[in-house]
This record gives sequence, C-alpha cells and structure tokens, in this order.
Amino acid sequence: MDYTTIIGLVSAALTTGAYVPQAVKTWRTRRTGDLSLSMFSMVFLGTVGWLAYGLLKDDLPIILANTMTLGTSFVILFFKVKEVQEGRRNR
Amino acid sequence: MDYTTIIGLVSAALTTGAYVPQAVKTWRTRRTGDLSLSMFSMVFLGTVGWLAYGLLKDDLPIILANTMTLGTSFVILFFKVKEVQEGRRNR
Repeated sequence: MDYTTIIGLVSAALTTGAYVPQAVKTWRTRRTGDLSLSMFSMVFLGTVGWLAYGLLKDDLPIILANTMTLGTSFVILFFKVKEVQEGRRNR
Repeated sequence: MDYTTIIGLVSAALTTGAYVPQAVKTWRTRRTGDLSLSMFSMVFLGTVGWLAYGLLKDDLPIILANTMTLGTSFVILFFKVKEVQEGRRNR
C-alpha cells in the first residue's frame, strides 16, 4: 500500500471516528445547547445520502463508514431535537 | 449526470456544508461546553489528511471540500481549545 492510500485511510478513520466521542459526550451529559441543529441535521441527511451512494455503487468502505456515522450522528441529533422540542435552550 | 452521481454530490455538499452553521454559531456565542474536544480535534486532523490526500492525488473535489472544512473546523476548534485553556468548562 502506498503512502497516499495510507494517508487517505487514516484521514477516513479520523473524520468517521470523530463522531464517536461527541455521541458519547452527548449521551452522557444530555446537553446539546452549544451544538448546531443545522449542522447535525445536515450531517445526518448527508450520511443517509452517502449510504445510498455507497449501496448504489456497491462500495464497501463508503457503506461501512456511513453506517457508522449514521448511528453516531443519529444519537447526537436525537438529543438535540429532544432539547429543542423541550424548549430548554434556543437552537 | 446519472442519479448516483447527483446523490453523491448532494451528500458531499451536505456533509461539507454542515460545519458552516456550527462555525457561525460557535463564533457568535463563544460557547463550546457541549462540543467534544476529541471530535473537533479528529475532524481537523482528518481534514488536514484529506487535503494532503487530495493534493497528492490531484483531486479537485477533495481539495475544495477539505479546504472549506479546514476553515470551518479550525474556527470551532479554536474556540473550543480557548475555552478549555481558560478552564471555564470541562472538556
């Protein structure tokens, strides 16, 4: 495997894995006031789109990465929407 | 352009553009207590990696998307690190 591919794989692991600590933090604290509703709505919708793209192209790395982000971004968005609905903080 | 490509482009626009409303919100409020330091550190490092990957592969869409995310994720990370350093909130 050449250096370029390794850089790509490490980068993919970082930008995909990044949502894990945020999901854990949000799950634990239930606090989402500083998170942007627009950001996590766009990430979630975009991830659904990427997953469809991966399935249509039968591209395993895209399918796996976006299945993972679908879960983590759903957790974050769930608590954000819940907080907005309860009106505890502004969006 | 086929449907699959359109789905890919829309998804890329969503997941790249998502950082804009978060950067704007963080810039305005200066509040980052609910953001995960790990998440935005990983996103920033991963974006630097993706940009290197795009430059090495001479891939314009990857270069453009990650130049944008480099800026937006830098703004978010900057205020998060500042807040952690000032010890106003836990990470």
